Amino acid sequence: MNRIEKLRARLAEEKLDGLLVSTGENRRYLSGFTGSYGWLLVTADRVALVTDGRYWAAVEESCPQVELLKYLPARDKRMGVLVAPWLNGTRTLGFESRNLTVADLEELRSDLGDRAELKPTENLVEELRQVKDASELERLRKVAAIADRAFQRALAVLKVGISEQEFCAELEHQLQKEGARKPSFDSIVASGPNGAYPHAGVTERKIQAGELITVDFGALADGYNSDITRTIWLGELEGEQEKLYRVVRKAHRAALDAVRPGVKAGDVDSVARELIAEAGYGEAFSHGLGHGVGLAVHELPRVRPGVETVLEPGMVMTVEPGIYLPGVGGCRVEDSVVVTDDGFEFLTHSPYQENGPHPLG
Amino acid sequence: MNRIEKLRARLAEEKLDGLLVSTGENRRYLSGFTGSYGWLLVTADRVALVTDGRYWAAVEESCPQVELLKYLPARDKRMGVLVAPWLNGTRTLGFESRNLTVADLEELRSDLGDRAELKPTENLVEELRQVKDASELERLRKVAAIADRAFQRALAVLKVGISEQEFCAELEHQLQKEGARKPSFDSIVASGPNGAYPHAGVTERKIQAGELITVDFGALADGYNSDITRTIWLGELEGEQEKLYRVVRKAHRAALDAVRPGVKAGDVDSVARELIAEAGYGEAFSHGLGHGVGLAVHELPRVRPGVETVLEPGMVMTVEPGIYLPGVGGCRVEDSVVVTDDGFEFLTHSPYQENGPHPLG
Repeated sequence: MNRIEKLRARLAEEKLDGLLVSTGENRRYLSGFTGSYGWLLVTADRVALVTDGRYWAAVEESCPQVELLKYLPARDKRMGVLVAPWLNGTRTLGFESRNLTVADLEELRSDLGDRAELKPTENLVEELRQVKDASELERLRKVAAIADRAFQRALAVLKVGISEQEFCAELEHQLQKEGARKPSFDSIVASGPNGAYPHAGVTERKIQAGELITVDFGALADGYNSDITRTIWLGELEGEQEKLYRVVRKAHRAALDAVRPGVKAGDVDSVARELIAEAGYGEAFSHGLGHGVGLAVHELPRVRPGVETVLEPGMVMTVEPGIYLPGVGGCRVEDSVVVTDDGFEFLTHSPYQENGPHPLG
Repeated sequence: MNRIEKLRARLAEEKLDGLLVSTGENRRYLSGFTGSYGWLLVTADRVALVTDGRYWAAVEESCPQVELLKYLPARDKRMGVLVAPWLNGTRTLGFESRNLTVADLEELRSDLGDRAELKPTENLVEELRQVKDASELERLRKVAAIADRAFQRALAVLKVGISEQEFCAELEHQLQKEGARKPSFDSIVASGPNGAYPHAGVTERKIQAGELITVDFGALADGYNSDITRTIWLGELEGEQEKLYRVVRKAHRAALDAVRPGVKAGDVDSVARELIAEAGYGEAFSHGLGHGVGLAVHELPRVRPGVETVLEPGMVMTVEPGIYLPGVGGCRVEDSVVVTDDGFEFLTHSPYQENGPHPLG
């Protein structure tokens, strides 16, 4: 059953005659349309895309099965003006309430008048996107491999005295040279005390020996994202820094071991969380264990305490426990994996620093 | 009068007791907060920021005048739960209807109950952001200069046979090396027939001599964006390609000459549009002449047909006429300028290829 058919089955369950898809990743997933602007309309027997002149040629070439509604801002006040006559018999039209703005909805209501009743929906397409198909897994393996290669190359410039910014610029350049369109998100290179902030960016701080360096990055290509974190160091780790790393890697390995079909996402989180708490750092693991990754960097499934989602083959998720101690530093190790019939497969393959032979020697 | 005071004057005009600011650039503009998540609340006598633990230390350090409401997802169901008790007497609370999603508004309504009436607003802060102050102009000059330097450096690798992607990767790497956090947007390098699409990305196409190459890019640093386009070529242009370039540059110069305080933005657009139409390419100039640029790459003022906004000193805008001919190619030349007391000042300074001595020789 193709993606549109799966969505139609969900629409029938929700008693909706159609769905207006405004979220970019959902639009792309269902139609193949890669433009940044437009609405996809899906009913029981038709699919249309409303978009402006920048993208008409692309739609006609790459989405021949989709009806194109040509939005011309100079002629049509809004895209809704083209949606109204097209609906023709669609009485209840769902919209994506986590994406459509209040102003968009007001205007759409006014453009549709009494032609259709607009109903809020959440996660209809996002839930389909959780389980990846073979073509998506191929792309996800590719972007993960780009990130792995870029990291190995960037490590060649890592030395005492290089700034976080300089190392980050080299890493992002290598991502592009290895085939990424761009980084999946603003890379994090957080050294020493900066590592205590899980979403630190990069600063001009110069990297020193004997401190933890959290490097969190990914590659975007062909619409798909990768996401990986390695915590590395120059010289030798001592005292609490060494302990942080050891505890995080233990939690990381144990959580990975728990990944298999039939397990709840929240229970995988618990495995890591309990080990970190036992080591005395429970409060310092201040985020969820992971998240889905695909067309978006953060997508379903959520992997956090209490999440009831049951893992299925084809789901892709990150496993990324971390410990953050203000004034001391921080550590996070993250892999992206795909759930298989009997466990999981790594998408990311960069070595961990404690395992020899290591590229840093 | 500082930014918050200016906003308060607008709120009084709109008969609003307060505003919930959810748009990232607006939040940053008013408070200095650079995080990616949170709501800023402004009333007649108080300013507060609701955000999660990732950003608490940053808010306390860099926005000491802002009250911090600590959102803890594990304790507070939603940010709105913290907003409700804080409001205390605020009866009509505006929200940004072009940013807040339908789901956000529903939840906020439920969290506030009858404590406040929620009213949609548009562009309240965006209109203040149109006119830049001295500190913003300093940052805008800096990011424009980064882009100028990066372009000069990237031109060193431009030669027949290099692909659009390769040239783009070099340009984006030079942007970072010159001080950008990242490109302001996905750079465009559109050669030959690819230039006919105003929002072409980059492809594996190899650049040839005698064809137009549109290069549209910018630098993001310290929150501010630059935006510049140069159309360049290797060897000699012939026939219609040469004419396209000549017409675009003529329209570009004439439109710049029209930029001064007191002129309507729509009238600056008309100057370029009429010259391009006279040359027979009216239909092929398929977008507006320009847009504001600052914390966002595209912001007010709009510079399009019919826009009544009167230019004021301190407004920053792009001037970017273009001609796009499917099957032939395209051409766009863009500068970013600031309106001064008696005309304009260039922010972007890269040379145009027709002027010697040119870096391409």
